[in-house]
Amino acid sequence: MSSRAFQDHYRDEHSTCYGCGRLNENGLKIKSFWDGDTSVCHFTPRPYHTAMQGFVYGGLIASVIDCHGTGTAAAASFRAAGRPMGSEPDFRFVTASLHVDYLRPTPIDTAMELRGTVEEMKGRKVIVSVTVTSKGELCARGRVVAVQLPEGFQQPNT
Amino acid sequence: MSSRAFQDHYRDEHSTCYGCGRLNENGLKIKSFWDGDTSVCHFTPRPYHTAMQGFVYGGLIASVIDCHGTGTAAAASFRAAGRPMGSEPDFRFVTASLHVDYLRPTPIDTAMELRGTVEEMKGRKVIVSVTVTSKGELCARGRVVAVQLPEGFQQPNT
Repeated sequence: MSSRAFQDHYRDEHSTCYGCGRLNENGLKIKSFWDGDTSVCHFTPRPYHTAMQGFVYGGLIASVIDCHGTGTAAAASFRAAGRPMGSEPDFRFVTASLHVDYLRPTPIDTAMELRGTVEEMKGRKVIVSVTVTSKGELCARGRVVAVQLPEGFQQPNT
Repeated sequence: MSSRAFQDHYRDEHSTCYGCGRLNENGLKIKSFWDGDTSVCHFTPRPYHTAMQGFVYGGLIASVIDCHGTGTAAAASFRAAGRPMGSEPDFRFVTASLHVDYLRPTPIDTAMELRGTVEEMKGRKVIVSVTVTSKGELCARGRVVAVQLPEGFQQPNT
């Protein structure tokens, strides 16, 4: 696996995300990498990311799936274009829809492993399926429909 | 609207949730209420809950939808049973699946309004649809499939 995460290639203005922005000091700072044709992310929940005691909060699982999905969409787009991440023009995705099936409670005292697979790339849309495994058991399945942000998208307050 | 939120009726052992637990000091502590047959939650994102600057992080939106959905499922079950929330036996729900469609960027500098509607109650399952509105515009739609936790569910570490 590369030592630089997908998210480490994002431009500064796309690095404020609470889930994956390297410039968000309060955020989760998830990191995603290629492992062959699969993208992988290991994330260790903080002790307060509880649902019921001992288990990970479902919203946190959804959050990590979300950012791992959009990161995988960006990385896959660079791959398909035959260019390294961070080269111009940029590919940066936002989430159009997010679906999570919670299959069993996810233990909080260890890292979760997320694995992403690109299911479809069509025009500006990339669909990524994600599995969440913990202690060898499949705990959740996610599906992220990511849509490429238009180059000229106008942000407020910047 | 009642002055006590749905979540204020949860038992202590069900109040550790990062999204809605009144005992989770680091959590979001969302609060849901009835407004007629609709459940409502107002949540003001913290400044660091950013996606791109100026907009709310999608994972945060998913998290608030999740907890508002399971809270609504519990409150609706007590209503259907003709009993006040907090009476015995308890109704407490976990999320089986969560779906969010992000329709437009959600501004971060104001409260979001979530409104929940019970779509279906069948056996131990309650399906709740949720709208997320900000500054008068519909920003996201969610759907939570909530399943009642078995009474004897065993938690670790307790």
